[in-house]
Amino acid sequence: MPADRYAVGIDLGGSKLRGGLLSEAGQLAGRIETQTEAWKGPAGVLANLKRVVSQLLDSTDRSRVTGIGIAAAGMIHPKTHAVVYAPNLEWREVPLRDEIESAFGLPTYVENDVRAAAWGEYRFGAGRGVQSLVAVFVGTGVGSGAVMDGLLLRGFNNAAGEIGHTQVVMDGLLCPCGQRGCVEAYASGSGFVRRLHSALAAGTATSLAEETGRDASRLTAALVARAAAAGDPFAGELWQDAERYLGMALANYVTLLNPELLVLGGGVMTTVPALAESLARQVRARTTVMSRDVRVARAGLGDSAGIFGAADRVWAQG
Amino acid sequence: MPADRYAVGIDLGGSKLRGGLLSEAGQLAGRIETQTEAWKGPAGVLANLKRVVSQLLDSTDRSRVTGIGIAAAGMIHPKTHAVVYAPNLEWREVPLRDEIESAFGLPTYVENDVRAAAWGEYRFGAGRGVQSLVAVFVGTGVGSGAVMDGLLLRGFNNAAGEIGHTQVVMDGLLCPCGQRGCVEAYASGSGFVRRLHSALAAGTATSLAEETGRDASRLTAALVARAAAAGDPFAGELWQDAERYLGMALANYVTLLNPELLVLGGGVMTTVPALAESLARQVRARTTVMSRDVRVARAGLGDSAGIFGAADRVWAQG
Repeated sequence: MPADRYAVGIDLGGSKLRGGLLSEAGQLAGRIETQTEAWKGPAGVLANLKRVVSQLLDSTDRSRVTGIGIAAAGMIHPKTHAVVYAPNLEWREVPLRDEIESAFGLPTYVENDVRAAAWGEYRFGAGRGVQSLVAVFVGTGVGSGAVMDGLLLRGFNNAAGEIGHTQVVMDGLLCPCGQRGCVEAYASGSGFVRRLHSALAAGTATSLAEETGRDASRLTAALVARAAAAGDPFAGELWQDAERYLGMALANYVTLLNPELLVLGGGVMTTVPALAESLARQVRARTTVMSRDVRVARAGLGDSAGIFGAADRVWAQG
Repeated sequence: MPADRYAVGIDLGGSKLRGGLLSEAGQLAGRIETQTEAWKGPAGVLANLKRVVSQLLDSTDRSRVTGIGIAAAGMIHPKTHAVVYAPNLEWREVPLRDEIESAFGLPTYVENDVRAAAWGEYRFGAGRGVQSLVAVFVGTGVGSGAVMDGLLLRGFNNAAGEIGHTQVVMDGLLCPCGQRGCVEAYASGSGFVRRLHSALAAGTATSLAEETGRDASRLTAALVARAAAAGDPFAGELWQDAERYLGMALANYVTLLNPELLVLGGGVMTTVPALAESLARQVRARTTVMSRDVRVARAGLGDSAGIFGAADRVWAQG
């Protein structure tokens, strides 16, 4: 029996740099997690990234490694796989694929991190065996990826899946993207922080003022959920808005794509597990009859989803 | 050089039954248009449909016909191609594929009519040569189909694309589907009729009362647009809601799928051409930066799109 082939998977985020070796059979080995050190700039981050790849390659028989897949938190050029723009890394026009390909002589693929995580869940996580899924991750922002009949939806500019910037309120809250009424303005870690910041400036009475020492940036989704449950009216409004607008956006996504499975993941979903159940109820209540039987599941791979998905793109594309 | 192959394409709507012969080169010949006569029930409609197919087969060398594609206004079973439910035909559980396949001995495919029209536009209409498109048809209802990297999105229950029942207003107008705030409640022929009906019952002053002889069912999108332009406040509200909520729903669709092209078609778009320009502006104003360069075009095949799309599925699936 021939030995397994392997692919290197890297998840390059704004704060963490994670990597692992994925076997074709779907086993992840040699997982590494370190700091991205984005403050070092592209050259410093690339040095860190290359160190992680080298460690992974040194840990196995290199002739069995087929390629390198990188999930990067940013906008990826659909053809060159350069990082066009990555706000969390403060990168613009970094030729990530070329850098890694020439350093290691292995075919390299770069995928947006959220789409890579969706692909990881589809192949190895909550979505194993399904035909189609939509995976939505709620954390500081709200992102998603969709797979239909085995096709990862990328879009014309490699920009599909931006559910966080679909609009749920006509002329609603201003979002940093410049639009009004985006889901992310109501239902994300950053949205909560901005709303508390405004409320504190306006003198709104809320227990969240004390909980955060009047520093809105210290607000977390868990704090909002707890204060809402304890009866704080402002926190209650924040939490109710997050649940219902996210529910509406998810329902619309499901109505448009009619997936077999809706996967819910991300930091907010992890720290407030009750949110997933509430959203599942809302999706069922707000979708068309033919899409209502969508199965809703929590993400299964945690913060390894990007590694799985990035590594697997080596074979899925190759 | 071998002679062209042909596929029969049929568009089975609630009032019209249309057919044609599509050559592999993309030429439509022998177009037939007749009445569906839905009041005759499934047996009568099937007899009409078979008559149209027979006429088309008799008009060419039958050995060159590869198969039959049918676009049907209803919910199609993804495996059996039976019509599960077609409200406009008042059909439930009609084994359409089996009926036609056994009658003519040719491979037969049944596709939802809106998705067939989207596929037709992708292959032979406004979308020739593009990689991905979203096609939205606004008429009595609002429907759509999407093609991504050559894949027609069907969904798990063959129910993808129901943009008319995405929600744009939290707790908004009641839609006959049972939900509130659906696009179709604001921006469709049937939505206009229902809103005028309520307004007349409530005694709202509007020139549309006279225009329709106080019979709301006589209202058309063209009448609403004209009365709005003439300064009628009620008609102005209807038209503004239609434009902005449809604009928001289209923008959200584009933000989710990032298509190269957005195709706008359907009866309302045809009778009020200015609507397409207004919607194009709104889509650009309401989408993310990376999706904003979506090209917006009017549908190119008119009411032949379903014939083209249905016929071509014979080859695309076969």
